[in-house]
Amino acid sequence: MNVQGKHFRTIWLKEDDPTVVQIIDQRWLPHEFVIEDIHTVEQMAIAIQEMHLRGAGLIGAAAGYGMYLAALYASRSHREGFLQALQQAGQLLKTTRPTAINLQWAVERQLSAVLACDSPEEMAHATYLTAQAIANEDAEYCRQIGLHGLPLIQAISQRKPGQAVNILTHCNAGWLAFVDYGSATAPIYAAFEAHIPIHVWVDETRPRNQGARLTAWELGQQGVPHTLIVDNVGGHLMQHQMVDLVIVGSDRVTRTGDVANKIGTYLKALAAQDNQVPFYVALPSSTFDWTLREGVRDIPIEQRNTQEVTHMSGRTGAGKIETILLTPEQSPAANYAFDVTPARLITGLVTERGICTADEAAILDLFPEKRS
Amino acid sequence: MNVQGKHFRTIWLKEDDPTVVQIIDQRWLPHEFVIEDIHTVEQMAIAIQEMHLRGAGLIGAAAGYGMYLAALYASRSHREGFLQALQQAGQLLKTTRPTAINLQWAVERQLSAVLACDSPEEMAHATYLTAQAIANEDAEYCRQIGLHGLPLIQAISQRKPGQAVNILTHCNAGWLAFVDYGSATAPIYAAFEAHIPIHVWVDETRPRNQGARLTAWELGQQGVPHTLIVDNVGGHLMQHQMVDLVIVGSDRVTRTGDVANKIGTYLKALAAQDNQVPFYVALPSSTFDWTLREGVRDIPIEQRNTQEVTHMSGRTGAGKIETILLTPEQSPAANYAFDVTPARLITGLVTERGICTADEAAILDLFPEKRS
Repeated sequence: MNVQGKHFRTIWLKEDDPTVVQIIDQRWLPHEFVIEDIHTVEQMAIAIQEMHLRGAGLIGAAAGYGMYLAALYASRSHREGFLQALQQAGQLLKTTRPTAINLQWAVERQLSAVLACDSPEEMAHATYLTAQAIANEDAEYCRQIGLHGLPLIQAISQRKPGQAVNILTHCNAGWLAFVDYGSATAPIYAAFEAHIPIHVWVDETRPRNQGARLTAWELGQQGVPHTLIVDNVGGHLMQHQMVDLVIVGSDRVTRTGDVANKIGTYLKALAAQDNQVPFYVALPSSTFDWTLREGVRDIPIEQRNTQEVTHMSGRTGAGKIETILLTPEQSPAANYAFDVTPARLITGLVTERGICTADEAAILDLFPEKRS
Repeated sequence: MNVQGKHFRTIWLKEDDPTVVQIIDQRWLPHEFVIEDIHTVEQMAIAIQEMHLRGAGLIGAAAGYGMYLAALYASRSHREGFLQALQQAGQLLKTTRPTAINLQWAVERQLSAVLACDSPEEMAHATYLTAQAIANEDAEYCRQIGLHGLPLIQAISQRKPGQAVNILTHCNAGWLAFVDYGSATAPIYAAFEAHIPIHVWVDETRPRNQGARLTAWELGQQGVPHTLIVDNVGGHLMQHQMVDLVIVGSDRVTRTGDVANKIGTYLKALAAQDNQVPFYVALPSSTFDWTLREGVRDIPIEQRNTQEVTHMSGRTGAGKIETILLTPEQSPAANYAFDVTPARLITGLVTERGICTADEAAILDLFPEKRS
């Protein structure tokens, strides 16, 4: 998508030096637009863990490129040693964030590609091809999600001619969370390009404020009308018919349709159900965890540093980026990063292959190769 | 309650000069403990509007003292002029915050007291007596709420011997929101004094962060174990049996039991219902609006300055209080301060006269004088 009118992806190989991966360092948004050079898999692991980049699709793509970087520097003296180095790199990458399934998925895909090769040289080349394929597919799948989601917005627009369709989203499942387009935002961008009047309620999304910092910024850069709200507001808006549709992304979806997403998603799903507002989850198929059936019980929920709750960063009046303490010094905090929304609260899943209801039979109708 | 071991109310007449009202200026908590002198009704109106003090009971008490301050300086040359000055003062106070009913209630109570008097001198003395009575009753009613709420916590404690009762609260319905004890916190403080093991999940409560700034601070000052969480977390905790009881306060309750409270309360009530967690609202009877039946439709919801959403204040590492911008400069924001939780989601109301279910018949059984 566009940044000050110029097209960017969130991750790419440096134009004049393909041994360097470049990313948008999202920690500085919306105040500064910083591009970071990543040279090694260790640097990539830090970038994922410390959230220079984040979001289901993007950390999958980052893991893909991380494996490629590991392959660049692994000894090619014999096949077993090379493979072992890549397995270690995969282990390092997989442990950076526990909830998002895309990390595991990308690492496994790289290892499968490598195992099919004979020589370390072929293996190394396979990691390059696979990293590029993961990124390109992520972008293309998100574009497809946009096309499949667009009719949902069109249908609402036809019921209220001349008025904007009000869409609420939580966290950032925008292009900054993927390689391009985003999952939850893809239908929004598709509707905007189709000149359907839309307006997006952007949940601030505590902690880390990915809605206020990232979603608001990327919608603003594309020119999409939006309004920032704190996470507490969505229920009130829905009670007063001010939300036509909720679309969120996901970090992991079980084969039965339970959805792990940024903490607080479950509360919005409850409010949507209570007010008969359609609640959709947009995801590329890389986000499915085909091994799980009971999301609330079985999806591991990451707990992060409590400083994300007790402190906040932003720009002072003097233009300096400053971190402030919000809370009493002695008060302990807890920081659960995700929650699980049970399938029963979800109107539908928007995938690259189309829309289905959030239940195993419907999901497997779209992805029959996952029947086991 | 205690501040560094010394007992305070939130509002009082200055010890050596009863023409001055003193308040805790809550804008500086938890970083600084500041006492402000209020000399005039105009200063009191600003203190209410700009939230030097806030909370249902406390702004009622503040309005009571504001009327007293107005009476101190109103001309006593004739009864009508004096009365008119007080009516103007009441008008000024009532328009400071639209949602909380206690403001109106306190102003009307002062005007009734004044109307029953003959001379301006008697009238002025009546405002003094009434202001003190409102404050004393508020404290006493909150103490009674604590006694009535205590058995709820005791009963849970008996079902899980040796383990802490986990109570979640939203915003600050603590002693800082009243004159003393608080509404939602009164049963918590009563349980703590009765040596029942308890632990409080404190919702940060965006915007303005009254949970993080005020509830955490006051619980910490009394020594009550607590953990700060962002507003998004409560649903996840309830899904995992980590909350035994929710207690919140209220800014206005209809005669049918619909509850206006800080924005986001409705979302917690939905999560409580979805997970069979008891959800109680604690309030002194001054919070009832006996004229309303349809809360979602009829309770006016205050919209405040959007800077409360886009900016945040706190303490820098260097110890300075600083305000930072959190969001993209061009992104608009909206700031709805309250929402309404329908009575159907509420397990019970804890009042100074006892506990009742949130429906008109049960409420009127406790307050039969309000049958009309």
